[in-house]
Amino acid sequence: MKGVIAAINPEVQVIDLTHGVPAQNVMAGALILQHSVRYFAAGTIHVVVVDPGVGSARKPILIEHGGSYLIGPDNGVLSLALEDKPPDCVVELTNPAYHLQDISKTFHGRDVFAPVAAHLSLGVLPMEFGKPLNTWTRLFMPRVLRGKNRLQGEIIYVDSSGNLFTNIHGRDLTELPRKRLLVGLAGSPLGGLVTNYASAGAGEFACLLNSWGLLEIAVNQDSAKKRTSAKIGDKVTVTVAD
Amino acid sequence: MKGVIAAINPEVQVIDLTHGVPAQNVMAGALILQHSVRYFAAGTIHVVVVDPGVGSARKPILIEHGGSYLIGPDNGVLSLALEDKPPDCVVELTNPAYHLQDISKTFHGRDVFAPVAAHLSLGVLPMEFGKPLNTWTRLFMPRVLRGKNRLQGEIIYVDSSGNLFTNIHGRDLTELPRKRLLVGLAGSPLGGLVTNYASAGAGEFACLLNSWGLLEIAVNQDSAKKRTSAKIGDKVTVTVAD
Amino acid sequence: MKGVIAAINPEVQVIDLTHGVPAQNVMAGALILQHSVRYFAAGTIHVVVVDPGVGSARKPILIEHGGSYLIGPDNGVLSLALEDKPPDCVVELTNPAYHLQDISKTFHGRDVFAPVAAHLSLGVLPMEFGKPLNTWTRLFMPRVLRGKNRLQGEIIYVDSSGNLFTNIHGRDLTELPRKRLLVGLAGSPLGGLVTNYASAGAGEFACLLNSWGLLEIAVNQDSAKKRTSAKIGDKVTVTVAD
Repeated sequence: MKGVIAAINPEVQVIDLTHGVPAQNVMAGALILQHSVRYFAAGTIHVVVVDPGVGSARKPILIEHGGSYLIGPDNGVLSLALEDKPPDCVVELTNPAYHLQDISKTFHGRDVFAPVAAHLSLGVLPMEFGKPLNTWTRLFMPRVLRGKNRLQGEIIYVDSSGNLFTNIHGRDLTELPRKRLLVGLAGSPLGGLVTNYASAGAGEFACLLNSWGLLEIAVNQDSAKKRTSAKIGDKVTVTVAD
Repeated sequence: MKGVIAAINPEVQVIDLTHGVPAQNVMAGALILQHSVRYFAAGTIHVVVVDPGVGSARKPILIEHGGSYLIGPDNGVLSLALEDKPPDCVVELTNPAYHLQDISKTFHGRDVFAPVAAHLSLGVLPMEFGKPLNTWTRLFMPRVLRGKNRLQGEIIYVDSSGNLFTNIHGRDLTELPRKRLLVGLAGSPLGGLVTNYASAGAGEFACLLNSWGLLEIAVNQDSAKKRTSAKIGDKVTVTVAD
Repeated sequence: MKGVIAAINPEVQVIDLTHGVPAQNVMAGALILQHSVRYFAAGTIHVVVVDPGVGSARKPILIEHGGSYLIGPDNGVLSLALEDKPPDCVVELTNPAYHLQDISKTFHGRDVFAPVAAHLSLGVLPMEFGKPLNTWTRLFMPRVLRGKNRLQGEIIYVDSSGNLFTNIHGRDLTELPRKRLLVGLAGSPLGGLVTNYASAGAGEFACLLNSWGLLEIAVNQDSAKKRTSAKIGDKVTVTVAD
């Protein structure tokens, strides 16, 4: 992909966001993109290749949104980055003039997304890459349930260190009384909310707001995934200490 | 290596092709290079450090080929990228003026290949790096055997997802009648040829032409390596369905 | 981090030194940095995020040293790169004008180190980032013990291939008589010192001076870590053959 881009626009700067998305995990890719785009300058072109449906009926698309661009498969991986706001335009990448000549059925990242991104960086307008779309695939976050002095969310992502990310955002916690908050996983208490990893002793649970702004269950110097055997969808509660 | 290059030519753009070549696997490195160079612009300098013989008698070399350059050890890792065409020139990197001052016996990537590549990018001519070579190490692909309505090849590479790459190219398949084609591995039938990963159900075999143009045996959302225990050299057949 | 840097200074070139530091291993990060900085041009800004204490009382710092810059946590990870020489200045990064607006408690790499590095690359002076520090955290290498015709060191790092790095430097070996040298690990003889990996047969020990200039215990085409079950701190001896 980088060779294709450099051959079309040698001046463009390519940044690797991550090579660590778990295989074929569209939700994980969508979450990583959602929490990264805000740190890039306006005008950045984000290309995503988490694409288990490559070569099937799923469409290759380009989204213009808030002055930046998202390019990838229409499988929902781009959708969380929109943050529930309507995009400026969505285009299906149907114009073969901006693709490589021989398109494989298994690697549109190289054959479609990369050349489109490179031509876009040279000033080609979004509408020239294909035809406008009025509908596209969206992923949805599970909702946080709210009770009296209590929130219930769930695990939505597990990172490569075994840290458990939940759908409970720091904003959700501000709805609770400003007292000590206790975190539970699948019915088992894990202890109070702390501010950073080093607040917990080695091998102890550190439940904290992480760099995505989400409640995370970690174990200092160990893997929370291994320690708890937790998986995506397991319920997580935050309750106010008596 | 990138520090060495940037210190000599701060303007040059360095692209990481892969850090995923299996340790000391010269054939794997050669195949990855072979199927990548065509996507880079003419004039690109490709540096390869799959170099288990570093510090021994194997020579460090530079190959000029079709307007581009290949730099690395003379262990065959560069040879498949030549695609059976004679190179414009091959030079042994004997001129210490273009190496780092203290050359380790274990990392010529940093001490020889990187500084040579950087000086080459500044316009130093190939012949200035050493003396011409008339012979160099070549790797050879096993041949595909052809029978009536039947091809037999073998597994030549297993990628990090456990997909099994064969030496059977899409061109080979065009020699067969245009009927449904069946794929077998080590005598066991795996099913028909499909066009993409999503054509197979989860956990099912997907035998397809991959992004290198080669017949690949994959399992949708799983590892074909684990499912079959296959290894390099195992025989793969393509037969015409009755 | 790269998005943050590119948004502040789109012209700066960012090089990934490694993503392979073992999790939370400050000593490993310090050793990798120590043996890499010399290959970069003067003026390079080195940013390190091996930061298990992020969000705690440990300070974020900038060190100016020999015309280059080191930015990271004050946990010792930067200290070995100083090579026992006094730095030109050390600054605690207290000026919020050069940080992101909302600083997480878990990722100062993105929120503090990256924006400081980007502003530094634009010409902001070190002293503008905070207040000078007179003391900072240093790591110390264990000393090599010297006997008659004998050195004793220890394992200080194990790389991702399972090679065992010791604190015995090539300079130390020059103190011994110029005879054949024998290497032992935890009391067991491993054989003589060789010059490169290929000097040993497949599966045999190769004890050699590696690309960091250190005595390394490797196994050709295998992992010395697995073969020996050795760990950080295990004693390694070099003796002169009779």
